Amino acid sequence: MNFTLSQVPERSVQPRESGITMVMDKGLSVRQVEDMISSAAPYIDIVKLGWATSFVSPTLNEKLAVYRSANIPVYFGGTLFEAFVVRNQFDDYRRLLDKYQLTHAEVSDGSIELPQDKKCEFISTLSQQVTVLSEVGSKDENKIIPPYKWIELIKTELEAGAWKVIGEARESGNVGLFRASGEVRQGLVEEILTQIPFDRMLWEAPQKSQQVWFVKLLGANVNLGNIAPNELIPLETIRLGLRGDTFNHFLDPDTKQQWKIDK
Amino acid sequence: MNFTLSQVPERSVQPRESGITMVMDKGLSVRQVEDMISSAAPYIDIVKLGWATSFVSPTLNEKLAVYRSANIPVYFGGTLFEAFVVRNQFDDYRRLLDKYQLTHAEVSDGSIELPQDKKCEFISTLSQQVTVLSEVGSKDENKIIPPYKWIELIKTELEAGAWKVIGEARESGNVGLFRASGEVRQGLVEEILTQIPFDRMLWEAPQKSQQVWFVKLLGANVNLGNIAPNELIPLETIRLGLRGDTFNHFLDPDTKQQWKIDK
Amino acid sequence: MNFTLSQVPERSVQPRESGITMVMDKGLSVRQVEDMISSAAPYIDIVKLGWATSFVSPTLNEKLAVYRSANIPVYFGGTLFEAFVVRNQFDDYRRLLDKYQLTHAEVSDGSIELPQDKKCEFISTLSQQVTVLSEVGSKDENKIIPPYKWIELIKTELEAGAWKVIGEARESGNVGLFRASGEVRQGLVEEILTQIPFDRMLWEAPQKSQQVWFVKLLGANVNLGNIAPNELIPLETIRLGLRGDTFNHFLDPDTKQQWKIDK
Repeated sequence: MNFTLSQVPERSVQPRESGITMVMDKGLSVRQVEDMISSAAPYIDIVKLGWATSFVSPTLNEKLAVYRSANIPVYFGGTLFEAFVVRNQFDDYRRLLDKYQLTHAEVSDGSIELPQDKKCEFISTLSQQVTVLSEVGSKDENKIIPPYKWIELIKTELEAGAWKVIGEARESGNVGLFRASGEVRQGLVEEILTQIPFDRMLWEAPQKSQQVWFVKLLGANVNLGNIAPNELIPLETIRLGLRGDTFNHFLDPDTKQQWKIDK
Repeated sequence: MNFTLSQVPERSVQPRESGITMVMDKGLSVRQVEDMISSAAPYIDIVKLGWATSFVSPTLNEKLAVYRSANIPVYFGGTLFEAFVVRNQFDDYRRLLDKYQLTHAEVSDGSIELPQDKKCEFISTLSQQVTVLSEVGSKDENKIIPPYKWIELIKTELEAGAWKVIGEARESGNVGLFRASGEVRQGLVEEILTQIPFDRMLWEAPQKSQQVWFVKLLGANVNLGNIAPNELIPLETIRLGLRGDTFNHFLDPDTKQQWKIDK
Repeated sequence: MNFTLSQVPERSVQPRESGITMVMDKGLSVRQVEDMISSAAPYIDIVKLGWATSFVSPTLNEKLAVYRSANIPVYFGGTLFEAFVVRNQFDDYRRLLDKYQLTHAEVSDGSIELPQDKKCEFISTLSQQVTVLSEVGSKDENKIIPPYKWIELIKTELEAGAWKVIGEARESGNVGLFRASGEVRQGLVEEILTQIPFDRMLWEAPQKSQQVWFVKLLGANVNLGNIAPNELIPLETIRLGLRGDTFNHFLDPDTKQQWKIDK
């Protein structure tokens, strides 16, 4: 931090198990990746090349090299995994991860119907090769999964070998964990957390109001994902209670009283 | 493409007559132009310097030189054309195109009332100097043009010498082809296509839902415009059925059946 | 300007007292700052490092150096001032301004309750050290300040030594001057201007519709703030009547008549 301020919550340090920020790279140029790293490296824990953008990016190799030299792990979005699986090309996908020297992979079923045991088989197989993030929640806004089912899915996927389980939100933040309006399905999140350790969950929260909601509920060191590159610095201030939205959240009661902050 | 995947639609190749992506540059710096080109050149077919942004850009010449050396045609937004015409400076505008070595120009009447024969005269005159894109549809959300009139206008402008006719949407995607909500005027588009070849139309579709709608209706090689620079890679994945929204669109029925994709 | 067009309003020249554009930098990299300056320097009058983003930016010193060498004044967002004040670290804040060679500072009470005399004391003290911008309006959408109170606050703060008074809107443009929908509180603005010279106000107007509204009411040389870096060029065209939204605003009646522009 550049200055000394009291009453600022302590942040976990890299490499993090909690307090992780997962960035969504949906087609940055090599120089834009360098810019992002130079301006926010301490707050970038892992990068997702969104859905199948890696398939069409002309400078994929150079980009991966930049991330690698900054020690930032990268993984391909779950939709690419699904695109290979749906075409019966799972073995090709495994070779791909090696070819691009990837250390992480996502297993998801946002666009295809994947029986739970089959999904766990993929998690289990891939976890012998890379660190696996699995994702729960449909990209289809009409498929509402009830809380008990979310918990069951998350538990099974962690047991199958997932490092973290991602709560789905898409780039836009209006499905899965969220209502079509972008509002958090609060009861769902709270019920999940009665049974799943909070550092095993990585919550996709692309919108500011969603990030604020999670920080207020789970503190500075909640794992958050699908963060846009230009929202890395803003998110860090939200985590630290240094943006209007969380300004008083980490202050002592005495301090609040003196300045009549009552929200 | 970086990987080999089956059941991915074939894309037209540059220079394209269909499958064109027109990017909106509304004030990029020279380096940002370089970044865009380095990260997405195969998907940039033509660039519009939005409305009259070219009038105020301090580095216009340098920027045009970068586009030129990448063989990417550039044109000034139609609002600049109208700004000259409304001031009776059309001849100045023609000199401007030469001065900046432009190969393309837009003729539009989004902000002024231009009788159809006068508009076609401009198209005809300019088409002797450059390749002309003409635009149909008002920027005024209260001016609703009925479908038969759109068709008549489009036909006449193509006959007058327009290379493509652009369906108006603005940067925001909420007028012309679209309702104020951003929703596509579906009946309008379908009726136009009963009489106009689909490769002569270039549809402004700045919002993701609009791009998805056109790709589902007209396939991977529909001409789309007003694409933001950071949406070039995402759009290409939509065209190829490699984003959630079009994921199953290009898959064989057998593949879909196996994975129970029923949308 | 790159071309010669008649009927374009005259803009004030830098350093400006009116017609100021204040940019919001919420975490740009050093190279992104260079890009912004190279592509829009004539339209950047002052830069705000949004809220407390300066606290977490890894390259703060380098960034300030780039702004300094371009002669662009920079100030820390008011939320940082409040973060120091609420912790009784105001003296630290003063030292900070010196350490970073800042020439401007903001005094605000968007997140804390600051009695008016105390706020004016801060303005007065800081104005002996730097040029002060004070801000009126709460970040809390439920705190509606009536117009007569706005005027009283603005007058007092100008008397206490503020160079300009900022009308609050946040990054999103949905509080203070604006309704939750982003719509301008028109009566409020008009009433303020009956008593405060228009060049002493700096209106936060992050949304395009808000910028258009202010330019139509107050002309090309209204002071506007919280402008996103990639909206600098678009804003300049709005100021000059060279975007659809203000296209006919600065045209002569005769010109309008000829082209039947009646809005």
